[in-house]
Parts: sequence; C-alpha cells; structure tokens
Amino acid sequence: MSKSPYEERIARVQELMAEMEADLLALSPSSNMLYLSGFYDEAGERLLLLLIPRMGGPIFLVPELYAEQVRGGPLPTELHIWRDASGPEGLLERALRPFRQQAGLVLVDDTMGARFLLMLEEALPGAKFSLASQLMARLRMEKGPEEIRSMAEAAAIVDQAFAEVIGLRISGLTELALARTLEEAMAAEGAEKVAFETLVASGPNSALPHYRAGQRRIEPGDVVILDFGCRVRGYCSDITRTVVCGDPPGEFQKVYEVVREAQERAVRAVKPGIPAGEVDRTARETITMAGYGERFIHRTGHGIGLDVHEEPYISPGSSLLLRKGMTFSIEPGIYLPGRFGVRIEDIVVVTDSGGERLNNCTHALQVVA
Amino acid sequence: MSKSPYEERIARVQELMAEMEADLLALSPSSNMLYLSGFYDEAGERLLLLLIPRMGGPIFLVPELYAEQVRGGPLPTELHIWRDASGPEGLLERALRPFRQQAGLVLVDDTMGARFLLMLEEALPGAKFSLASQLMARLRMEKGPEEIRSMAEAAAIVDQAFAEVIGLRISGLTELALARTLEEAMAAEGAEKVAFETLVASGPNSALPHYRAGQRRIEPGDVVILDFGCRVRGYCSDITRTVVCGDPPGEFQKVYEVVREAQERAVRAVKPGIPAGEVDRTARETITMAGYGERFIHRTGHGIGLDVHEEPYISPGSSLLLRKGMTFSIEPGIYLPGRFGVRIEDIVVVTDSGGERLNNCTHALQVVA
Repeated sequence: MSKSPYEERIARVQELMAEMEADLLALSPSSNMLYLSGFYDEAGERLLLLLIPRMGGPIFLVPELYAEQVRGGPLPTELHIWRDASGPEGLLERALRPFRQQAGLVLVDDTMGARFLLMLEEALPGAKFSLASQLMARLRMEKGPEEIRSMAEAAAIVDQAFAEVIGLRISGLTELALARTLEEAMAAEGAEKVAFETLVASGPNSALPHYRAGQRRIEPGDVVILDFGCRVRGYCSDITRTVVCGDPPGEFQKVYEVVREAQERAVRAVKPGIPAGEVDRTARETITMAGYGERFIHRTGHGIGLDVHEEPYISPGSSLLLRKGMTFSIEPGIYLPGRFGVRIEDIVVVTDSGGERLNNCTHALQVVA
Repeated sequence: MSKSPYEERIARVQELMAEMEADLLALSPSSNMLYLSGFYDEAGERLLLLLIPRMGGPIFLVPELYAEQVRGGPLPTELHIWRDASGPEGLLERALRPFRQQAGLVLVDDTMGARFLLMLEEALPGAKFSLASQLMARLRMEKGPEEIRSMAEAAAIVDQAFAEVIGLRISGLTELALARTLEEAMAAEGAEKVAFETLVASGPNSALPHYRAGQRRIEPGDVVILDFGCRVRGYCSDITRTVVCGDPPGEFQKVYEVVREAQERAVRAVKPGIPAGEVDRTARETITMAGYGERFIHRTGHGIGLDVHEEPYISPGSSLLLRKGMTFSIEPGIYLPGRFGVRIEDIVVVTDSGGERLNNCTHALQVVA
C-alpha cells in the first residue's frame, strides 16, 4: 500500500530529525500541524498536540471535543483523548514518559503558546527546547506545483478584488468600510477566507506600516494603502497597492516612482542560487540612492505559503540561498511620518532561471474618485 | 495630574506583582497588552514586548515599523526600538540586564509564542517562568459598567444577525456561504469584526463541536448549528443557536428540549458566591438525567471579554467563586456522532442577586426553509 502524502511528509520529518539529532517534535495547532496531518483549528486554550518521535508513529493528544475530527483526518495516528473534567496533565505525563529518560532535543512549534510550552518543559525537565521552524522550513520553503497552483489562484482573487475596488468611489468611505468591500470582493471571487486582517490606511495613517483600518473617512487628497490577502485550499495570497484619492499631495508622485522602481528591480534580481539579502539590497539601494533610505523601515519581504509570514525572509544581509519553488513577497515602502506612505507588494515564485510574479495587476498609479 | 485608566491598571498590576512576589511581567501582543496599554496588533514573528517591572515604569520593546503606533498610544512608556537589519537580540539583552541578577519570578502571557518565550528563558537563565493569567485574570474577570455596555452591544448585534438569517432560505446554501451571510449581517449592524471564525455545522457535521464551516450544502432534514460572535470596542459576543432545515430527524426534538432545559436551568443557577462548578453541575445533571450524559463532551462555558475564551471557565468541579460583573457563556450541548448535535449558548453576566443574559433572542426551535 502506498503512503499518503501526509505519511510521506512525516517520514521526511523523521529523516531530518535523525540528521539534527532531535528526539521529539511537538506541534500545537498551526500550519505545521496542518502540513503534517491535515488537521487544523484555531489555537485555543485547550492542550492539543501532535507529537512526532524520531522513530515510531505520531501521537495526537486531543481534548475530547476534537476527537471525532482528528480521528476522521487523513493521517493515521495514535489518539490520546482528555476530558474537560480531568484536564490534560495526567495524559501528557503518560504520553511523554517514554521520552523522559532520553529527551535530548525537543523541537516545538514557533507559535506554541507559553501555556503549553511551560507544561512541556515541566514534563521533560532535562530536555533542551528549540524551534521547529529550523526543521519545518526545510520541508516547506520550496513549494511543489500543487502548492503553487493554490497560491496562484489566491493571487488571482486579490488581483481581481483590487481591480473592482479602484472602479468605485472611495471618497467618504471609512477605512473599515473599504476593508469590508475588499473582503466581500474576495469572498465573491471564491476566497475561503481572508489570510490576515485587511489593512486600509488612509491619509497620515498610510505612514504607519502596520496600521490596520479604522473609523477614519477617506477624503480627496488622501494617499491610501491597501494591503490584503486571502486563502485558497489553505494557501495565502498577499498584495499591496497604494492609490490616491483625487489630487496627490506634494512629493507623492516622486516617492511612488521610487518605490515602483525599487520593487521592479528587486523582482528582476530574483534567481536561484543568490542570497535573499541580495534581493533586499537591490530594493534598498534604489530607495537609498533616491534619498529615502531612512524611510524604508522594514525588510523587503517575507516567505508565504500556509502562513502569511514564513521563511524565507528577504532581510538585509540574509545569506539564505534562493531555490526554485520558494515563494515570497517583495514589498519595499517609504513612510513620511504625519504625511503619507507608499508600499507596493507582489508575491514572487523562484523559477529555474529567475522570479515570476503571481500577482498580475497594474503598478501604474491609480487615481480613484 | 490624574492618572489615565491605563496608568491605573498598571499601578494595580504592580500591587498584585508585589503580593505574588513576581519581578517582571512580560506581555506579547494579546488582550493583556491591549488591556494595559491600549496597543494591540496581531501577534507576528517580530519580537514586540511590554515589560512591566514590579517597580518603575513600563517598557515597550518594539520593531521599528510599529514604533510610531506605540508612541502614539495612550500609555506613556519607555520605548526601545529594534530594526530588521540588526534583529532584537541585543536590545532584549540590554532591556533585561537589570533583571538578570534578581529575576526570581517572571510572568509571561499565556499566548506568548515559543519563539519569544525561549528567547526570554535564554536571556534570564535563573528565573522561574509562570503564566500571567494568574495575575491578569484577577484584574479582568470582573467587568465594569463600560465593559458590560460594550459586550451588551456586541450581543445585540449577534441577536439581530440571527433574527435576519432565520428569515432566509438556507436549503441549498453551503455552510461557508451561510457563515458569510452571518458575518455580513454582523458588519451591517455595526460589528468591528468577527470575534472568531464563524461556525456553521450542518447535518452530521453538527455532531462535531468544533467543526467550522465547509463546502457542504445544507439540505432539508439537516440540523444546523450556528455559533458566531463579533467585537464592539474590542469586547466580544458569542452565541449559539441550533436550527433545523425542514423536517427534523428522529429524536431531534427530544434532544433539543433537553439542551434547552439544561441551559435554562444553568442560567437560573447563576448567582454571586457560588462556585462555577455548580453551574456546570446543574446543566450536566439535566442532561445526564435525560440519558445523554456521555454525549455532553465539553464544559458548560467559558469566560468572555477582550478574549472570546478567558477566565472564569464553567468547568466540572471548578471551585472558583462567581462574583458580580463576571461574564461567561452557558452552552451545554449533546452530540450524537454521525447524526446531529444540539448546542444553545448565551452570554450571562453575574448581577447582585443572580445572572442576566446579554443575549435576548429566542430559544424556541426555529424551523428554517
């Protein structure tokens, strides 16, 4: 009988565990759990763990109310079920007993909550704990054709949503209302859900790179940054466009052109074999030469897949070598506090010879009513 | 000059820290951070900490791209800013240096990701780490009038969304489409955002208490569980109703009546001074007497406020004493695997003499087209 894709992934994880001399991989609800078992739920306050030993079968430790769902999942596992009435401690202690003597290195999900990590640390007092991403990124960074297909579909949906929204009158709308319009457009185009909280930053808010969306009303003369994404079969898209409502403020067109050029040059710099830092350097150099180096206050991009942010990060100085199938954002920005910001973002996949955008919507400045 | 509400909360935290002999409270982006500083963002992969020592002022340690937002927030703090190019390690080490000699007890956010907790543990090798909820729950469990007002508004929105949806034809819709309809109704009624991923579980999926919503199409004869909530000024609502599309399956009406009665009796049991476990016992007893005790596979409820799930939990045997201003769900359920499930949930606030529902929409069985 041939192995399911999930069983193959577990086998590959165990090979890497042997190589890294890790004894146990402990995952909480996360993209890693989804990738290895097909099961996912929002992380809650109840202990739910997938334990993968270096040798032997995986074990799921689950609250009773998730038991049927995990049992029905695609990965055959041993199932340990705890009930609200008794709590998880006894079950955890028993499940970890085989590791108590020889748990050298335990890898835990990077996002595992302190409430669970402290329990594990107490149950395995001699072990050294380290992050699962060291191992999981090696499996997940290079996407296969099916994964890229899902991401291309998710990218097409955000492209389409952007095209619809720039046809509307946005002057007078609150940022939240415009965010909702974008989300409804994505849903109508077939998005499973949003990939992250939609960002609409207008006027001076556009100078805050991580502002979300609020009650501010968009007015003529505003620069508006739209940064949004959705999921298809669990895989994310993420796009940013900067538009202007009516007449742009002074210096805006110059700044826009610098960002557009930095993004374009960085995308063209992508190819297998070069360090990620080289892509960051290309974007940063363009912006620095134009005199805005101090206003580009974040890295150039982040990997994307089942998580919106994952490895590889496109950061200054990163020596990580790009390989075919890696997918990441390229999103330089310039932020002038109190005035406006500009950011342009596409997702790029590394091909045999270069980089290819998954997003295909225009970079030309859009003036919206 | 009088203190802001945030400064008052910090002062109260420091009193409790002295009482618990905790030296440092370390918060990552979470409801605790929001409650104490007014600042919140989705937890990301960049280190962003609010450090509160037992004595002295709070310190924010933030990535450069959040600096302007934190600086503009309502709580005056010392601000330590790190840049993507250099990473947070050096800054963290310097910020924690004063605690290195005498960090006895460090309280960390229950939801703090392992990626950050492991950094803190490395930076403070002698310290004992424990969960911040022990302290924060004491501040947050008993809500004030303004908090209850926000929660009542959020509850009125979900009541209204439910009333709208049962007037529609749902037969033929996918679960996801119905979930989206509920979310749009909440948004139209003034919700800031959903409080959690909307749950629509139809037919046999209704027997899975934590199933979300999928591509299954609702058909006549289906039991459908709707479990959804929204936020107003950060505060959550959460409601569950079970409806039937057309003719109900056998045994359904009996099961529905048992759950309805269990919920009603549990709500009536609420009053200040009794243990939370007593409310759970009341619901459980009703269900057990009817012969479904083994099919009620979760606790009766959870506290709610800035988090959808927070203390106090209404669990079997809990000795936590209810106090005026506590807010929690009462949501007994019965799940018959492969067939259907029933759950009814309202949010209740403890008053001077009893408990009062924040939700006011009907418990009578709704038969939907």
